[in-house]
Amino acid sequence: MGFFKAEAAVYKPVADVDLGPNSDEVYLRANVKAPRVAGLLVKIFAWFLESRIFGPFLLYILKKDNLIHKLVSFAELKEPPVFVPLNPHEDLTEQEVKCIESSLSPPEQVQMAVECLQSSERTLKNPKVSFCRRTILDYSRAYNSGETTPRMIADRFLAAVHESSDPTLNMSFFIDYNLEDILRQATESTLRHERGEPISVLDGVPIAIKDEIDCMPYPTTGGTKWLHKVRPCKDDACCVKRLRSCGAILVGKTNMHELGAGTSGINPHYGATRNPYDTNRISGGSSSGSAAVVSAGLCPVALGVDGGGSVRMPAALCGVVGLKPTFGRVSHSGVLPLNWTVGMVGILAGTIEDALIVYAAISAQLPSHQPTTVSPKLLFPLLKSPNCLSRIKLAKYGEWFNDCTDDIRTCCSHALQRLHEHYGWETVEVTIPEIEVMRLAHYVTIGSECSTSIASHLEKLNMAEIGWDARVALSVYGAFSSREYINAQRIRNRQMQFHKNIFAKADVIVTPTIGVTAYPIFNDALKSGELDYINGAALVRYQIAGNFLGLPAVTVPVGYDKFGLPIGLQFIGRAWSESTLIHMAFAMQSLCNSEYRKPVVFYDLLNQD
Amino acid sequence: MGFFKAEAAVYKPVADVDLGPNSDEVYLRANVKAPRVAGLLVKIFAWFLESRIFGPFLLYILKKDNLIHKLVSFAELKEPPVFVPLNPHEDLTEQEVKCIESSLSPPEQVQMAVECLQSSERTLKNPKVSFCRRTILDYSRAYNSGETTPRMIADRFLAAVHESSDPTLNMSFFIDYNLEDILRQATESTLRHERGEPISVLDGVPIAIKDEIDCMPYPTTGGTKWLHKVRPCKDDACCVKRLRSCGAILVGKTNMHELGAGTSGINPHYGATRNPYDTNRISGGSSSGSAAVVSAGLCPVALGVDGGGSVRMPAALCGVVGLKPTFGRVSHSGVLPLNWTVGMVGILAGTIEDALIVYAAISAQLPSHQPTTVSPKLLFPLLKSPNCLSRIKLAKYGEWFNDCTDDIRTCCSHALQRLHEHYGWETVEVTIPEIEVMRLAHYVTIGSECSTSIASHLEKLNMAEIGWDARVALSVYGAFSSREYINAQRIRNRQMQFHKNIFAKADVIVTPTIGVTAYPIFNDALKSGELDYINGAALVRYQIAGNFLGLPAVTVPVGYDKFGLPIGLQFIGRAWSESTLIHMAFAMQSLCNSEYRKPVVFYDLLNQD
Repeated sequence: MGFFKAEAAVYKPVADVDLGPNSDEVYLRANVKAPRVAGLLVKIFAWFLESRIFGPFLLYILKKDNLIHKLVSFAELKEPPVFVPLNPHEDLTEQEVKCIESSLSPPEQVQMAVECLQSSERTLKNPKVSFCRRTILDYSRAYNSGETTPRMIADRFLAAVHESSDPTLNMSFFIDYNLEDILRQATESTLRHERGEPISVLDGVPIAIKDEIDCMPYPTTGGTKWLHKVRPCKDDACCVKRLRSCGAILVGKTNMHELGAGTSGINPHYGATRNPYDTNRISGGSSSGSAAVVSAGLCPVALGVDGGGSVRMPAALCGVVGLKPTFGRVSHSGVLPLNWTVGMVGILAGTIEDALIVYAAISAQLPSHQPTTVSPKLLFPLLKSPNCLSRIKLAKYGEWFNDCTDDIRTCCSHALQRLHEHYGWETVEVTIPEIEVMRLAHYVTIGSECSTSIASHLEKLNMAEIGWDARVALSVYGAFSSREYINAQRIRNRQMQFHKNIFAKADVIVTPTIGVTAYPIFNDALKSGELDYINGAALVRYQIAGNFLGLPAVTVPVGYDKFGLPIGLQFIGRAWSESTLIHMAFAMQSLCNSEYRKPVVFYDLLNQD
Repeated sequence: MGFFKAEAAVYKPVADVDLGPNSDEVYLRANVKAPRVAGLLVKIFAWFLESRIFGPFLLYILKKDNLIHKLVSFAELKEPPVFVPLNPHEDLTEQEVKCIESSLSPPEQVQMAVECLQSSERTLKNPKVSFCRRTILDYSRAYNSGETTPRMIADRFLAAVHESSDPTLNMSFFIDYNLEDILRQATESTLRHERGEPISVLDGVPIAIKDEIDCMPYPTTGGTKWLHKVRPCKDDACCVKRLRSCGAILVGKTNMHELGAGTSGINPHYGATRNPYDTNRISGGSSSGSAAVVSAGLCPVALGVDGGGSVRMPAALCGVVGLKPTFGRVSHSGVLPLNWTVGMVGILAGTIEDALIVYAAISAQLPSHQPTTVSPKLLFPLLKSPNCLSRIKLAKYGEWFNDCTDDIRTCCSHALQRLHEHYGWETVEVTIPEIEVMRLAHYVTIGSECSTSIASHLEKLNMAEIGWDARVALSVYGAFSSREYINAQRIRNRQMQFHKNIFAKADVIVTPTIGVTAYPIFNDALKSGELDYINGAALVRYQIAGNFLGLPAVTVPVGYDKFGLPIGLQFIGRAWSESTLIHMAFAMQSLCNSEYRKPVVFYDLLNQD
């Protein structure tokens, strides 16, 4: 590398960087000027990138134009690399929590979570609430009262999926669902309920799983046509096993962006997952199907995987809650190894209470990736009342916060104002430096790891089996040097220090979840995919700290733009502070409850009248 | 990359690999056929490698020929990467140890170590011992008895260094030593002794420091002509600070292979460090000067840094003890960041007892690189008698053990036999798979990290400031992709598992330390350096587990080849088992004591008659 003399960023020592509101650190926008490209142009671009002659030159230009050269490849850094975002476990002084013994089984942990919810009732009987999705407790109560049975719900679920898949709707929610397997699970659950012996409140509750997570009896495609052939699924992933042990009905594998290598959820093989709020628009990705099925009421909860916002972005775009726990909190065993240091299982749910219940089912005090570390004790938040947290400080980086559409900015600012008015929470203005640098370093990292993980498969594969936009992504992913990868880890070190210092000033960082709301799906993208780096950058803008630094984050729906498309607010917490985040999301949700709107495509499985 | 269709190794699952003596795993020798090259040919080779046109093609050929492509780059692996060789702390059941409180100061820890030595007396008064180097306790006793003073020793030291540096000997021990600074330290120590208040047994003892470790008032050159200019030394490294706090006299910065990027110790800028046993031969590297000064009696102990055998190889070649502790046991703060995941401060000493004392001074129960891990409690071995360890099992991989010269094989096998006869220690035949794969993966790792660490300096540097063999190394170091780097870390994971399983069968792994004894220094290498990959491969053959897997290892002199050149035996232990290794080295040394020979160049600073 080195056709031209390269520009190189020289980074200041971390201690010299001012994180205050009047810092002279510059907010750098992503240097993306490329127009949206779809159809034949994507194919031509992919061919050029894959060419032995033009490829390296084009990749050089791309890395230079995107400032990867300046900010990562050739940067002058003093920090040693931090390869895995394992955060130290300080004694968190979290408010209003229940501490969970590490010996509890998943159903026992679920029970603990349910006990945290006593007073968080919210039903359609409340005259202020015009619309709400059915919750896990709604299902549980309906089963316990005999009002309905898991078997009936399974039938309605299958009918709804069938309807949503027909050519008029064409929602492309699922990659695979197995009628017999679903009915078998539902029958077993029904029998347990009939015996009066449900395993937990999750018994009989339909839960969908992103097709990046192993779940028997399905192959795990990762949104591809080939990955399941070279990597057969032989067992449930750890998180799926835990849900199954709670009695949940695993209702199939949700659609996703191919290989998780994009954010639109437009999959050339399994269809573009459509947004239940506007079926002409994207659901976001890569956990597109998981967000959309929850939004459309097919499941109260679904699992996704979040390597670069892949749970939080579609959750926000589809108007549901998305929770990405701290790196190391949920076992990664049985998740496609598309990367090793940024991805985490995450939860998509209609309400934060349901996210908590499923978090309780799948999380554990685990030995983490590194043999000498363990994650700290589990804490569940006591959701007694929305204003039970006192003296909360929200760190806000104004220039970053405002780098979104007018509707999102207005809506999210209004949400902050309401938090202040109702609970007295303070906003602290801060500067978070080098956010765009972090995005590029994360891109180098996830790209290198994804490429390494599947490279030996790709070399045996007919490239025609891969979608065009994924081919473009894979060409770039495979183009990084060891120096670029290691420098990215040194940038990770800087950011972990910056964020530690920010969390000395505030409890959480608050941002919009996404910079744009759901944008339209154009027909020319359906088969070729599309390259829309401007919208892509706006979607991932607020995601990266959650992945690259292993921090927990949650998105809550807080309103709608002028087209009625959902907007999410994100809280990013210090490591292992999930209970604070859930508390805060609960407080936020309580203020927005009465304003939630019903999607265009919606199924109420508990009420078929 | 990919001019041709690449061959790719497909690795078996770790659990399917047989580690027993009759395993069908093949012992693969390094695929090195290149003849020794020096003088103009090295320069031409460097020019080609640095050329924009020929460089990439030549590097491709090199990686292919050395099987890096097959065994690392394109390999099929199932393991996730392990980036940092942090080993779990199981409760070690080590025999005959003293457990050290973490609150002790360096002098207190030194005192604890001294108390472990009560019965390990060994002097020239013992009629069986014909030669032994002066030990720390010899110095301490001489100072305490008033027989000599640190000031007198400093004078003799300076005279000896002066003599060894003159053109007839030209030993090139030191890169820098400061007469005034040495005399000032000696005077202060002398005053402390006169007051009867020595700080520890190290008070007044001369200790030399490899020029890769910060030590005031010297610049830290790393064996280069430029690194100290871009990275000024502003403070003692942590390990140096601890030695200073024990009263040791820091007598200067020892010579090293430029950037640690070679194993011969031939430095074009500061001279080829010569072997005290034969001044026409190499001392080895990269800690060449540290090994040679100890061998020649100028210091009882010196510090080195071991990133790929750089302490143990020169120690063995120069007939002294070399100890590389577990990764994370000694602080790396203040050591040149030439890599981040394989290098460790190590100790070169005339006797294992002295290695223990200095280990006590510099080691600690440290928070390690990862924020959530700490190293386990320090244990010091009670060296009461050489045969105090019972039921020791030595794992030996015959094909690997025997892959050395006849003299080394004979000598090391004889040493094992003696251990069996005198102490009843058993040898267990094992197979350690993929040793050559590990060497290549380590090479990709240390190369990538070294290159990344200094790349932004190199881009501003006139390449003429760098020696020719280092330029060749840097060209290769900078040529790795992120995939190659990450695959190397997946191989690290495999090897950590293999070694864990080996250590379930045996206490230590035993090998010769080096595959060849000190080879000649030819004049054509003095200015250009040399490329001698056959000898280089023979030197590093037994080193890699100590670095790539973070395991502790020790080398003890066990005899001489037919030219009278020293031979070392190596024990590689499980993580954190330094005390067992020191015990074993002590037992081995006790059997060889009476046979140690005096080097051709030798100074007895305590006896100037």
